[in-house]
Amino acid sequence: MASSSTIIIRLEIRKSAITFGEIAMAIGSRGGDIIATDVIRTSQETAIRDITVHVPDDNNMALIEHLSSLDGLKVVNVSDRTFLVHLGGKIEVTPKMPVKNREELSHVYTPGVAKVCRAIHQDESKAFSLTIKRNTVAIVSDGTAVLGLGDIGPYGAMPVMEGKAMLFKQLAGVDGFPICLDTRDTEDIIRTIKNIAPAFGGINLEDISSPRCFEIEERLKEELDIPVFHDDQHGTAVVMLAGLLNALKIVDKGLEDIKVVVVGIGAAGVACSKMMLSAGVRNVIAVDRQGAIVAGETYSNPMWSWLADNSNPGQERGKLDEVIVDADVFVGVSGPGVLTTDHLRRMARDPIVFAMANPEPEIDPELAEPLVRVMATGRSDYPNQINNVLCFPGIFRGALECRARSINERMKLAAAEAIAAAVSEDELSEQYIIPSVFNEEVVIRVRAAVIRAAIETGVARRIPRDFR
Amino acid sequence: MASSSTIIIRLEIRKSAITFGEIAMAIGSRGGDIIATDVIRTSQETAIRDITVHVPDDNNMALIEHLSSLDGLKVVNVSDRTFLVHLGGKIEVTPKMPVKNREELSHVYTPGVAKVCRAIHQDESKAFSLTIKRNTVAIVSDGTAVLGLGDIGPYGAMPVMEGKAMLFKQLAGVDGFPICLDTRDTEDIIRTIKNIAPAFGGINLEDISSPRCFEIEERLKEELDIPVFHDDQHGTAVVMLAGLLNALKIVDKGLEDIKVVVVGIGAAGVACSKMMLSAGVRNVIAVDRQGAIVAGETYSNPMWSWLADNSNPGQERGKLDEVIVDADVFVGVSGPGVLTTDHLRRMARDPIVFAMANPEPEIDPELAEPLVRVMATGRSDYPNQINNVLCFPGIFRGALECRARSINERMKLAAAEAIAAAVSEDELSEQYIIPSVFNEEVVIRVRAAVIRAAIETGVARRIPRDFR
Repeated sequence: MASSSTIIIRLEIRKSAITFGEIAMAIGSRGGDIIATDVIRTSQETAIRDITVHVPDDNNMALIEHLSSLDGLKVVNVSDRTFLVHLGGKIEVTPKMPVKNREELSHVYTPGVAKVCRAIHQDESKAFSLTIKRNTVAIVSDGTAVLGLGDIGPYGAMPVMEGKAMLFKQLAGVDGFPICLDTRDTEDIIRTIKNIAPAFGGINLEDISSPRCFEIEERLKEELDIPVFHDDQHGTAVVMLAGLLNALKIVDKGLEDIKVVVVGIGAAGVACSKMMLSAGVRNVIAVDRQGAIVAGETYSNPMWSWLADNSNPGQERGKLDEVIVDADVFVGVSGPGVLTTDHLRRMARDPIVFAMANPEPEIDPELAEPLVRVMATGRSDYPNQINNVLCFPGIFRGALECRARSINERMKLAAAEAIAAAVSEDELSEQYIIPSVFNEEVVIRVRAAVIRAAIETGVARRIPRDFR
Repeated sequence: MASSSTIIIRLEIRKSAITFGEIAMAIGSRGGDIIATDVIRTSQETAIRDITVHVPDDNNMALIEHLSSLDGLKVVNVSDRTFLVHLGGKIEVTPKMPVKNREELSHVYTPGVAKVCRAIHQDESKAFSLTIKRNTVAIVSDGTAVLGLGDIGPYGAMPVMEGKAMLFKQLAGVDGFPICLDTRDTEDIIRTIKNIAPAFGGINLEDISSPRCFEIEERLKEELDIPVFHDDQHGTAVVMLAGLLNALKIVDKGLEDIKVVVVGIGAAGVACSKMMLSAGVRNVIAVDRQGAIVAGETYSNPMWSWLADNSNPGQERGKLDEVIVDADVFVGVSGPGVLTTDHLRRMARDPIVFAMANPEPEIDPELAEPLVRVMATGRSDYPNQINNVLCFPGIFRGALECRARSINERMKLAAAEAIAAAVSEDELSEQYIIPSVFNEEVVIRVRAAVIRAAIETGVARRIPRDFR
């Protein structure tokens, strides 16, 4: 995949020798795209300028060398904008009100705080109203399956979790805090999360490798009374289902009639399969390297055994080459090159393809385009991006507001339907089955749908004002 | 101890029947002190007003009943201001920069963030510059020894830890996050803190009962490479020593010449004793219920054994009644009534008394006043408050900025000297040996002193710009 970067070049410019227009031409000639310029210092002879440039294909070196070779120009410094925005981390912990004097101090700290501590000690449920538990989610990872990077450890995982905390707050007003764990032991992870749970109203598990992630999530769900949600599984599944609901409207097929092939049966693949089964899809076939998962076989992974018993009603056997025949929908959470144009030709009419491998989809969208009706990927540079950001802020917003004990299947389905509904009938098209991550309607709809489902399924411990 | 509270009374006032002046008189007649009033709604006949009233001695009921009995007045609601400021918790997690569009999203989250993750994975020390580790402290408690309230559990402890996080940010720009642990097991606590350490640049232990707190702190100091600081011990000791340094100037005695009796040999008592020994005091006598700790005896608490070997050089035996004779300084971290006027009369000339039991000091300051030269307490309503708030923000500010591996004895001594020096020679008096918690000089001085000491003792991993 072609990666690009944004760099900031500090130039010392001898005004008599070169003009800004010439510099801009030089940058453009090496593929650079000027985004912003700032004048740092200027004198009669020279100017110092910061020029922010978007460079495709990590072509920085060629550009910098070219600029350095020009008469009248000196490259003082080059910094990468992505690194710059990470300096010192991306979130902070701030007081909701200032503490300006002794009077205020006595309310928020000793001696006044003792009253509040006592009240919570006498009735623990008061922690939901009198502490940050009301609105705070732990974003927990052990760094074993981060993005496409794999096992990069808890330190390497931090920037992702911080980014998530930013999005929680910005999109849904939820306070997220990153907890990156320096252990990979399943029991140790479970115990640690249980131990730190009192401050939190929810646990967002993130980037924990399969199959440990299943046991960690299941056990925590049983042993904690706050929602535990493994976003890589359920966030992906919810958004994928939202896209599927809309795609089916376009091709005019019903959930119960379609044949879906899911390839890549890790955390996300299992969750997507289960989500579709919950939503009413009857014929889901899960396929891994060994071929279709089918009843009667034995599998060491308990999730695969579950799928063997609960999916593939036609007991189709074989590899993707075989089971893809007459499939209406392909769902990929595997790797690049898994899906070929040959496969697409053997699918049923109006193929729907969710090629969600990151950063490279299961099939190049340009290759697929002539052969599919609706296509979605995990990428932001193609239409229909399946992005968890559409789900986790709103689903936790809703769960926290109604103090849900858990995020159950009904709540996830409701979230998927709400995301799908954020695309109106008028807007809906092959190129637009999924709303933008910056569509403010999404969080509002997801929140409301999740709260309604939580109340109906009896997991809500509080009825928000607008639902009374 | 007389406690007071601030309540907000919502009144519906029939204007023709009663004036605001009459209401104010009525509030005053029951000891209430009006702090603020707000008009909520008003019509020709009636007005709704919120009146914020400071009420001494928890006398709320009498005041409310009196107001309810007045003609033309209806008490609509009474709320306690301390509870109101705690609604939903006192801190939040906020992005340092907004994420307004796809371009910005791509820098702080996928795909751009992957570059930063990879850089940290390749060199873990980069977490100190590219994540919140640079400036973030975990405020960790198991809720077993909270304020004067004792063992109220992790939920009850949260408001104190949140208050601490507010003060960290407001006073020193440090991001503190509360971690309240749902376990009391020493090994479990140690393991949990180690597991969550990657996100943090420091660990502030808080309100963990003795003697577990000693082992937890010692072990974490050995096993982590970031500062671990049990504030109840060392924060108290640092501020106490700061006060002592200034008190000794007033009575013109030297550290090495004084006899100090410390009463109450829990976490804070041990720390105060050790701190004074480090600072150069030769004759420290630690006293608990059983009497003075003395060499040759056996103690189950390892800290007591240490004190037996390292303090009380004159091997004085007996209870406080005996060892107080000719003491220059009394340091109390025990309970009310421990110190009597008889004791004061038997001390050396110009007695210095630190009666720090909370909320009731070892001796009533009014009783002690005619017999002592300098007196300090833990209370804000008497002069010379020994308040940890003077220490923890600045000491962590300094430790974080120089990426200290630990907070060692030299750094604590430097902090104490810096706090003492914030009171100038001109200002210094019996009534003013300790600066105010709102004195902005304190954090600046403590930070600089701590960084200098960290560099000198080789625990700094970074030299801040102003020290280069």
